[in-house]
Amino acid sequence: MTAPPATLLPASASASRTLTRCRGLVRPALTAAVERLHPYPGEMAAFSFGWCEVGGGPAVRPGGGKGVRQALAVLGAEAAGAPGAAAIPGAVAVELVHAFSLLHDDIMDGDETRRRRATVWKAYGTGPAVLAGDALFALAVQTLAESPGPHGGAAIRHLSGALGDLVRGQAEDLLFESRPWTGPDAVRTAEYRAMAEAKTGALLGCAAALGAVLAGAPEPVVTALDRAGRHLGVAFQAVDDLLGMWGDPEVTGKPVHGDLRRRKKTLPALAALAADGPAARELAALLTADPGTADPGTSDAAVRRAAELVERAGGRATTLAEAHHHLNAARACLASVPLAPAAAGELLGLMPFLVDRAL
Amino acid sequence: MTAPPATLLPASASASRTLTRCRGLVRPALTAAVERLHPYPGEMAAFSFGWCEVGGGPAVRPGGGKGVRQALAVLGAEAAGAPGAAAIPGAVAVELVHAFSLLHDDIMDGDETRRRRATVWKAYGTGPAVLAGDALFALAVQTLAESPGPHGGAAIRHLSGALGDLVRGQAEDLLFESRPWTGPDAVRTAEYRAMAEAKTGALLGCAAALGAVLAGAPEPVVTALDRAGRHLGVAFQAVDDLLGMWGDPEVTGKPVHGDLRRRKKTLPALAALAADGPAARELAALLTADPGTADPGTSDAAVRRAAELVERAGGRATTLAEAHHHLNAARACLASVPLAPAAAGELLGLMPFLVDRAL
Repeated sequence: MTAPPATLLPASASASRTLTRCRGLVRPALTAAVERLHPYPGEMAAFSFGWCEVGGGPAVRPGGGKGVRQALAVLGAEAAGAPGAAAIPGAVAVELVHAFSLLHDDIMDGDETRRRRATVWKAYGTGPAVLAGDALFALAVQTLAESPGPHGGAAIRHLSGALGDLVRGQAEDLLFESRPWTGPDAVRTAEYRAMAEAKTGALLGCAAALGAVLAGAPEPVVTALDRAGRHLGVAFQAVDDLLGMWGDPEVTGKPVHGDLRRRKKTLPALAALAADGPAARELAALLTADPGTADPGTSDAAVRRAAELVERAGGRATTLAEAHHHLNAARACLASVPLAPAAAGELLGLMPFLVDRAL
Repeated sequence: MTAPPATLLPASASASRTLTRCRGLVRPALTAAVERLHPYPGEMAAFSFGWCEVGGGPAVRPGGGKGVRQALAVLGAEAAGAPGAAAIPGAVAVELVHAFSLLHDDIMDGDETRRRRATVWKAYGTGPAVLAGDALFALAVQTLAESPGPHGGAAIRHLSGALGDLVRGQAEDLLFESRPWTGPDAVRTAEYRAMAEAKTGALLGCAAALGAVLAGAPEPVVTALDRAGRHLGVAFQAVDDLLGMWGDPEVTGKPVHGDLRRRKKTLPALAALAADGPAARELAALLTADPGTADPGTSDAAVRRAAELVERAGGRATTLAEAHHHLNAARACLASVPLAPAAAGELLGLMPFLVDRAL
């Protein structure tokens, strides 16, 4: 059974169909991989995928991510003219790496909920969550290392490069927390973009590229897919920042203005501060207020005011423009090499869905 | 310059010379690898190797491990008839994996000191230490994935298998903590042995095997070296448990009877309990005493008494016999395949040094 051409469906329906098809293709191998884990990290991994509750019982409300990375891997193989099944070891590996990175990032960031459930460290404890992340990481490498076919070595090199970038991006993000909002050591928007590309884009690019690598695609195709994924990552992070500031908590599952309240460096706030002008200066004063003062910049009123000022100083518009710029750059990467038209169409259909999400 | 034949030197001098030679061979590549890290996890990694203090200044008392795993990798290549340099990417990878596992294990176990210095999580915080471990893990995979030569794929498969075992062993060790000392759910000594083989033996076996893999050795040689390392791991863990119970704190850097005080499951204690008899029963009563009672089994007197009872019930003798049994099994593995005599001699010379350490 083949899906109808993407162009005949509304964008979001077409993208959902692509995601569902790819999840269906990859799920048996992903499940089989997770079942290879020791039962203890295995349960934590299954919990993080939304497959079970604490204790291992069936999930009350089965959840989990949309499976963007596995879809990029499958479409990468198809775009290179191979069956999507060629990408399966790569698709499993990138989903496992994504799960590992969420698990460890939630520990580093102290986040207690994700997708409306407790995070793994909150549900099982920090030590076990460190272990579960390590187990997912090792399983990702093992899955790709043991994949049959002549392209395993190149695939592992791609994945290990992305892993290095991902960790480097997370290191930058952690360091941003302790850097000032203003002055010569302030985080510049270019640095933020580089962090987002490494932390979010490297794995998205790796996913699409891995599919092509496993399909035996020529180097220019692999590189174009990798670059497209990296641009997509920057766009994705920009939108994530917008949602963290103005998204509906009912939809995002995150508290309103949560990033501002925690004084997390985000692109809208950094872009607003970089704009200069009275709104930017008032925003800087709010964000740098001593937490010990009467209005420490974290009260509801101060946080609402900060969000207003970010918008007034152009932070929202700049961030949205940034997202669209990188989305277009991703499209241009795809257009730069010969790809199988149906898969390229699905890739193009998926991109705005990921970026526009709830805006 | 070649080292004199191992047999002409006292065992420990010969082993030290081997370790020094291998560290010298591997150190430039290990340093170059660590320098590829982002400066933040890079500093934490260098701190964990004993190369610097917090902040990055030179180490006041340069330290670090003996480099057992890199030596096994170098000797594995030499035993297979290749120059030790053939093993360098594998030697670097196993040292990085070892450093990663120590970093994350110290978080899981809550250990605050290692080698007489603060552990990384204690010095830098838990989140950064999780990140530093991840960075070392990714770097290990990348180092091996990018290694030149025709055997990189096989090497990565070996390493990823060992990573899986290592995590599985750590999961078992964590679960042992919540299992009872007595009754049908008590940890059996066979389970403990399997845990030690996975947690400690898999990486030692992988180290020796990787050297041979990178040297292009035939499968029986690779398997024999892997098995030898696994036996060595069980012996090593047994001795570690003995040192944790009766070792001189001045030498081990650990508090006397520390494992008993924390009621950690160790081979001497499990073997003593399995022996039955009056000493075993008194020991069981002490170890299972409610922490809320007047003598919770963790007072100095109770812990001293527990150590006496472990010895009286035969736990010390059984553990020592276990260590020697696995040491002999490791020797038998080496004798089962044709190896280059000089390297085989160095391997044989290294083993008792590792196991007998401070007994």
